[in-house]
Amino acid sequence: MKRRDFIKSAGIGALATSAVAVSSQAFAAKTEFKWKMVTTWPKNFPVLGTNANYLAKTIEEMSGGRIRIKVYGANELVPAFEAFDVVSRGTAQMGHGAAYYWKGKNEATQFFAAIPFGMNAQELNAWLYYGGGMTLWEELYDRFNLIPTAIGNSGVQMAGWFRKEINSVDDLKGLKMRIPGLGGEVLKRAGGTPVNLPGGEIFTSLQSGAIDATEWVGPYNDMAFGLYKAAKNYYYPGWHEPGSTLETFINKDAFNELPADLQAIVKHACKDANMDMISEFTAKNNQALETLVSKHKVNLRPLPDDVLKKLHGLSNTVVQEVADKNAFSQKVYASYSGFQQQAMKWSDVSEYAYMRARNL
Amino acid sequence: MKRRDFIKSAGIGALATSAVAVSSQAFAAKTEFKWKMVTTWPKNFPVLGTNANYLAKTIEEMSGGRIRIKVYGANELVPAFEAFDVVSRGTAQMGHGAAYYWKGKNEATQFFAAIPFGMNAQELNAWLYYGGGMTLWEELYDRFNLIPTAIGNSGVQMAGWFRKEINSVDDLKGLKMRIPGLGGEVLKRAGGTPVNLPGGEIFTSLQSGAIDATEWVGPYNDMAFGLYKAAKNYYYPGWHEPGSTLETFINKDAFNELPADLQAIVKHACKDANMDMISEFTAKNNQALETLVSKHKVNLRPLPDDVLKKLHGLSNTVVQEVADKNAFSQKVYASYSGFQQQAMKWSDVSEYAYMRARNL
Repeated sequence: MKRRDFIKSAGIGALATSAVAVSSQAFAAKTEFKWKMVTTWPKNFPVLGTNANYLAKTIEEMSGGRIRIKVYGANELVPAFEAFDVVSRGTAQMGHGAAYYWKGKNEATQFFAAIPFGMNAQELNAWLYYGGGMTLWEELYDRFNLIPTAIGNSGVQMAGWFRKEINSVDDLKGLKMRIPGLGGEVLKRAGGTPVNLPGGEIFTSLQSGAIDATEWVGPYNDMAFGLYKAAKNYYYPGWHEPGSTLETFINKDAFNELPADLQAIVKHACKDANMDMISEFTAKNNQALETLVSKHKVNLRPLPDDVLKKLHGLSNTVVQEVADKNAFSQKVYASYSGFQQQAMKWSDVSEYAYMRARNL
Repeated sequence: MKRRDFIKSAGIGALATSAVAVSSQAFAAKTEFKWKMVTTWPKNFPVLGTNANYLAKTIEEMSGGRIRIKVYGANELVPAFEAFDVVSRGTAQMGHGAAYYWKGKNEATQFFAAIPFGMNAQELNAWLYYGGGMTLWEELYDRFNLIPTAIGNSGVQMAGWFRKEINSVDDLKGLKMRIPGLGGEVLKRAGGTPVNLPGGEIFTSLQSGAIDATEWVGPYNDMAFGLYKAAKNYYYPGWHEPGSTLETFINKDAFNELPADLQAIVKHACKDANMDMISEFTAKNNQALETLVSKHKVNLRPLPDDVLKKLHGLSNTVVQEVADKNAFSQKVYASYSGFQQQAMKWSDVSEYAYMRARNL
């Protein structure tokens, strides 16, 4: 019996149901679901963690409580970076993170999170929903018995906090900076030293001078972290993460067990969350930037053009190397970069040209 | 009986319901809803009309068919510009349009659609969901027994199609252009003659020279309309509509009649549709722009800086006049422009600085 037909017939017989509920229970399809969502963020972490809560609540409300999702912060059920495997196995039904954390599974995952000098939020969502990106992502995660989708985007991040000014390409040489992933690899090619530090050690390392610089997210998260107290030079733009996609991944068996209406609810709740996160980031970054500059007297600085050009050239090499890791990565790269080349032309005459015009 | 409790008890009693359905029908709360959605677009109009279909389908799927929404194109049930009144009265339950069409009801509606030199899509959504914009919009439509929300955004539009080049402010003088709303008022202040034409007359008027120029939407819609055959100069950026919000408005009584889960479904389906439309516009405008330039040999031209500056100054005056029409409009303007001032600072160091860096 299809869920839709069931609802239709059940919908007008409310009075009779409770009496026979117990006896018929064994014969009816499962109609209530308790899910666990494991996340890669500390519980209630601003925007990233609270988006997981928002997503769970949206699904619960739309389903009238037929799906209830308990959200776990990193280390509450499993460590952050075990989330992928735990959901793949079905121990939890749903995960919330960012695809570049799983590059050990396949390098291609990185195209579904953040690419240095890659697409921004609006372009990425266009690629995912209307440019073939989602299909490739689903194909990749299917190998792990998972269904992925986007549930948010950070927008363009900040380049980071620097103890000293960056005035030329030479200033990158020997620079010890906390910058993970592809951005870190690019810095290394520019002569710097990328370091990985747990979140809890970043502030003190920057303050003591053990590191010269760190990137984090954007004004809102960076301010909450107090980074402006450890270094005063706040550089833009975040060339290494120009619009990081955040993801959910759902155990395929758990998803398939849902009736069609609940599947639709889960799917559309994710797209709603995707709109919600970029809106929240934008609104809160606006406010935080103003506070950082006017109250905390942060020096807001653009990276010099020749530094950006150098980083761009090195990024192209590093991203090409990611593509060359395997055939699937090559396929995703072709789709991603093909879409970006076309999207940039439109962005240049629309969003970019408009923002320029507004400032004349 | 709450919907949630009902679902809970009904969900495990499928076998028994059909037998008693008829006798209990009179006592049960209403559980199935047939709605009419009237739109201001021709049926299936690309992106704008198809978004209405998408929204109806999403709601139907998530509700397991408990809400069925029949979408009407303009003039199918009522003319486009009667949609607001028809839903206000409850003859239809839902409408799909753009808030500036209702400026005759209150000038303030225009802040919820498009403002010359105003916010772009990302900033507008941040204002609506996290900056107090939605609350003001709800307050305004409440006077008409309606609940409004955003269901899409066009992104930055194009400035339009011009038979002759625009090289200076003087070229605007005497320019006869199809450009409705606030953009038209700005053109008038610059010495031009804004004209209003029904969609069906635009192409022939431009081709014959009865008008010198027209704006429409962006590459995808403009190409479908064939405007490149009537004028070869395609100007950017769309200073008059830098991110038009599209809306739905729901009859308040119809919404209140829904159980809580269906209310949540309608609300979140709208936010999902909002993400969907900007993604579709971005992807399709990318492709269409390429076709227009490479295949149809369109001359893609930026409006000169002094023209943009002139239009910006005049826009500020025109928008201030909208604010001055009534107290509520003043209140919305204060919220809108306050948010924009802050948002622009963040956009400049994030989206704008990044797009500039990427092009170096």
